[in-house]
Amino acid sequence: MLLRAVTAFGAAFAASRAGAATESPAQDKLQEKLKVVYHLSDFDKVPFVLGNIQNHLDGVGGPDHVTIALVVHGPALRPFQTSQANPELSEHFARLSRAGVGFAACGNTMRAQKIGLADLLPGFIVADKGGVVRIAELQSQGYLYLRP
Amino acid sequence: MLLRAVTAFGAAFAASRAGAATESPAQDKLQEKLKVVYHLSDFDKVPFVLGNIQNHLDGVGGPDHVTIALVVHGPALRPFQTSQANPELSEHFARLSRAGVGFAACGNTMRAQKIGLADLLPGFIVADKGGVVRIAELQSQGYLYLRP
Amino acid sequence: MLLRAVTAFGAAFAASRAGAATESPAQDKLQEKLKVVYHLSDFDKVPFVLGNIQNHLDGVGGPDHVTIALVVHGPALRPFQTSQANPELSEHFARLSRAGVGFAACGNTMRAQKIGLADLLPGFIVADKGGVVRIAELQSQGYLYLRP
Repeated sequence: MLLRAVTAFGAAFAASRAGAATESPAQDKLQEKLKVVYHLSDFDKVPFVLGNIQNHLDGVGGPDHVTIALVVHGPALRPFQTSQANPELSEHFARLSRAGVGFAACGNTMRAQKIGLADLLPGFIVADKGGVVRIAELQSQGYLYLRP
Repeated sequence: MLLRAVTAFGAAFAASRAGAATESPAQDKLQEKLKVVYHLSDFDKVPFVLGNIQNHLDGVGGPDHVTIALVVHGPALRPFQTSQANPELSEHFARLSRAGVGFAACGNTMRAQKIGLADLLPGFIVADKGGVVRIAELQSQGYLYLRP
Repeated sequence: MLLRAVTAFGAAFAASRAGAATESPAQDKLQEKLKVVYHLSDFDKVPFVLGNIQNHLDGVGGPDHVTIALVVHGPALRPFQTSQANPELSEHFARLSRAGVGFAACGNTMRAQKIGLADLLPGFIVADKGGVVRIAELQSQGYLYLRP
């Protein structure tokens, strides 16, 4: 009986290891929404990754069905500076932000680029300990990892 | 006793979290084969990643010891079109396919490139919800993630 | 009672799935240090990734608070050859090695580049089954994955 219970739990947890069990003890809700962190550091990948995130939202039926975070660091952060962002990027960013995507900018990169939060498109938060630390923390909280 | 049983299970599950427990409740088989999803979106990474997958199969002693899926999206899909693929790539692809590697092409990319399944090397399936959604789903099923 | 115990364990394990539970059955230590594997294969990413790892160490308060492994394969290995490494890279590498970062070089890449362990900066170990296999193994042991 004990073994059966534990085994059943094991199967349930395994099936939902990517987030569900971290937020709710309800073992019967196996199809809870996944959490995904996108990692973006390449300058030339910025539009591509925003498109990937839009496709991700669309593919699962909208933001009610997935939790997405984007962590930006290194050369990829510059295009998100208000002074640099082109209208198309700004609009795409705003649309994703309205859809609930969480955007975090690496604090180390911001210091290196001598910018503050006010210099970035509105909607970012600062990853104070750095972008890579933030990505590891999110994974430890059940976020799956995608680095297109 | 309960605690000990649960703890033992915890250790077993942790050691095999990458797949074993999702497929079998046998807690004594800690060394079951891993499941790995490779992520490929860069055009110029195509031969490299196919080589990585071949090395992965060889490194673990063949396809009996690992389950590998490759999800292709974005610019990386074009070289897999039958009309574009060079003989070396086609042969490499066929060899990996015979070895059991599962190939999925992003449905969004296929629409953007105006191609159907018949236009790709034989062996692909379509990731209808998109390549990134498929990668997240596979991870939620216990697949480890590799993005060379 | 059983259910409550199992559920409590589930929450504890989920919160610490990235390593803690694989090393210790202590369910009350949820904030154990994370384990992270960095994946490096791009030639032009070498200095960037070493910087990321330094930032990671600094961001969490030093090597006591994170376990970091770097697996290098493909074109990225060449700059780590003693005959190729510039002084800045050598010094950075040595500093990270002293801080406890584990460096593994892909055995397949070493064979392809016709080099042995003595040809690499001191501190490397060889990933005999290949770099990608090593990365999968580390993930199966609870390492989180980062590929900047």
